[in-house]
Amino acid sequence: MIHAAGAAVARCRSIASQSEDPSATTRTFLCPPMREVHNSLRTWMESCGMTVHIDDAGNLRGTIGHGPRLLLASHLDTVPNAGAFDGILGVVIAITLVELLAGRNLSYALEVIGFSEEEGVRFGVPFIGSRALIGDAEALLPITDRNGISISSAIRAYGLDPGRIASAETDAAAYLEFHIEQGPVLESLGFPLAVVDAIAGQSRLDLTFTGHSNHAGTTPMHLRRDALAAAAEWIYHVEAAAQSTAGLMATVGHIEASPNARNAINGLVLASLDVRYADDSIRLATVERLLIEARAIATRRNLALTYKSNLDQAAVPMDQALADALADAITATGHPLHRMTSGAGHDAMIVAGKIPSAMLFLRSPGGISHHPDENVSIEDVAAALEVGMHFLMNWESPIV
Amino acid sequence: MIHAAGAAVARCRSIASQSEDPSATTRTFLCPPMREVHNSLRTWMESCGMTVHIDDAGNLRGTIGHGPRLLLASHLDTVPNAGAFDGILGVVIAITLVELLAGRNLSYALEVIGFSEEEGVRFGVPFIGSRALIGDAEALLPITDRNGISISSAIRAYGLDPGRIASAETDAAAYLEFHIEQGPVLESLGFPLAVVDAIAGQSRLDLTFTGHSNHAGTTPMHLRRDALAAAAEWIYHVEAAAQSTAGLMATVGHIEASPNARNAINGLVLASLDVRYADDSIRLATVERLLIEARAIATRRNLALTYKSNLDQAAVPMDQALADALADAITATGHPLHRMTSGAGHDAMIVAGKIPSAMLFLRSPGGISHHPDENVSIEDVAAALEVGMHFLMNWESPIV
Repeated sequence: MIHAAGAAVARCRSIASQSEDPSATTRTFLCPPMREVHNSLRTWMESCGMTVHIDDAGNLRGTIGHGPRLLLASHLDTVPNAGAFDGILGVVIAITLVELLAGRNLSYALEVIGFSEEEGVRFGVPFIGSRALIGDAEALLPITDRNGISISSAIRAYGLDPGRIASAETDAAAYLEFHIEQGPVLESLGFPLAVVDAIAGQSRLDLTFTGHSNHAGTTPMHLRRDALAAAAEWIYHVEAAAQSTAGLMATVGHIEASPNARNAINGLVLASLDVRYADDSIRLATVERLLIEARAIATRRNLALTYKSNLDQAAVPMDQALADALADAITATGHPLHRMTSGAGHDAMIVAGKIPSAMLFLRSPGGISHHPDENVSIEDVAAALEVGMHFLMNWESPIV
Repeated sequence: MIHAAGAAVARCRSIASQSEDPSATTRTFLCPPMREVHNSLRTWMESCGMTVHIDDAGNLRGTIGHGPRLLLASHLDTVPNAGAFDGILGVVIAITLVELLAGRNLSYALEVIGFSEEEGVRFGVPFIGSRALIGDAEALLPITDRNGISISSAIRAYGLDPGRIASAETDAAAYLEFHIEQGPVLESLGFPLAVVDAIAGQSRLDLTFTGHSNHAGTTPMHLRRDALAAAAEWIYHVEAAAQSTAGLMATVGHIEASPNARNAINGLVLASLDVRYADDSIRLATVERLLIEARAIATRRNLALTYKSNLDQAAVPMDQALADALADAITATGHPLHRMTSGAGHDAMIVAGKIPSAMLFLRSPGGISHHPDENVSIEDVAAALEVGMHFLMNWESPIV
């Protein structure tokens, strides 16, 4: 398995050179280098006995076998200046599994999908490929990129028919996605793999504390209305609130102070809030509690508080039977089991709305992703292939 | 006295139109409109019986009477987009006092000075006028503005002789400056005037907290090294530390977070620190304590802390006999007495190094300064004139 894993890692590194940017890996929706990726993967898939086509959302799709259909999928696009494994590794592992099965007769059909778009870079809207898979992409077609080219035009320019994007919809029985963790949890545990039980729900807000700007040398402490001191007190509370519930994440990532001069008291501070958790009611209660806290801090300091909610996205549970089957495969192949929530969004989150879905995470060295240093170990890919093989050999499609 | 005060305020508002900027008040070192200010004030001073000249640092100087010399001074330059009273009001009050004395025979000479430069706008170095007065400006002559014009050239272009700047040095017996408070203290007390006992010492530092940037959705709280959370904890301590000592001021005015994105943990935060107090040992101990606190926060969070000291300026006490005489004048004229530290720098801070000096603050409505809304009430100017007259009628030069 180590040999197949080494080949998979080498293939990912090779595909990373198929890029819009000669000095970095950048591959957005249906850009010219995507055709090279399609062509090289198609050749490999066909050599494994698959029937391959590009659907009208630009997804690469290859099928083998008959009966109810199990999807193995991830995405082929990247962020700008990306690493070599986010998305693409899941597709390469899927095809490697088909290769390892070597024509073995299964009671179901396998379909490998390389989604055209997950990152949302070119059009500002993510998941174009997986939304087409569940018949939810037609409304996206008029959206334009910064050059004024619509998704519809981009599809047509690639030689596909945007008018037939609905034909990309699947009736598969189940969905499985392999993906790097993109975080430090598995590395901190010393585990190669994790079963994803849910994609976390997410709240994003912007808070504005408004006090009064004044000279730092002439305004005594008791006469100040310092917006940065208020925001600092609140940011400290945000961290403490998140720490009190295991798995809950709350982050102030963005801060803007005004006038932001070394000899002035800040009259205005904008601070963002990002809260993620697997349980929506706890996430929403946390946001509510942090807003109450912000208001109390502002009131006590004679400041004004306003806020704007930018995102309230529900958590998406994975299919428990599929996740349990993945967990069984991990244990059966002798690997330590960890089950976790994904804090980042993935195609599985979209597909799960229609099809029972599961995800397997591979350890990310250093927790690094969306960066050229993004990596994965050959041993961990071998472990994922072992788990994948065990899962595929034992999976039985539910009676529909 | 109200009539004289009203005239003084009107004169300040009129002088505000003598500006480098047609739509705002901006008057830097020896700019063309400074000549109009010199000419109009000179005419007024001469009508009061004063002998007037411009010294070779560009200071407007007028003398009346004989004997040991008492200086009444403030500055004629402004910040960009200034108000009508910062500096200029002190000069106008000084000349108004000479006018009110109406040739009355005193046991000392009075010299009114309108300093050429205090704000540091044109050359990035403040106090050019008052440094010349104490014989400490020669080293400044080669400094250039952003057009490459040196202080020396600017003096020559105005028709003065930079080679004779040393002749601006004074041997006066005492120095008195009237100035708006530029802060909210007197307004909060409901008092028109205050005696300044000291100009606060000042520390300025930049601290950098370095942690690790990571994805806000995939990094559990216990695996984070969040530089903004660390800085927030520290900023909250800065405020608390200052609040525990009356009169101590500590401000974080500038903050920069990186990457400062809503979905990322900040790996690096720069935060400034400005600490001011009348007692240098307490100021330095406060800075030391806040650095220890920052280091403890960084260490506990596995972050690195570095800092850079940008300024360590000692406090400057005013002359206690002169300050007491001002306080007596306030009480004798029926006004409530407040004594305070100035958190901002003033020409008196420079002059006090050589000559016994004192300052009288006038209430700043709204605490506003360095802004077109900067204001002063006619009643408060009248109170300052009453106090000034009482002081001048009772001051006796010390036997030198």
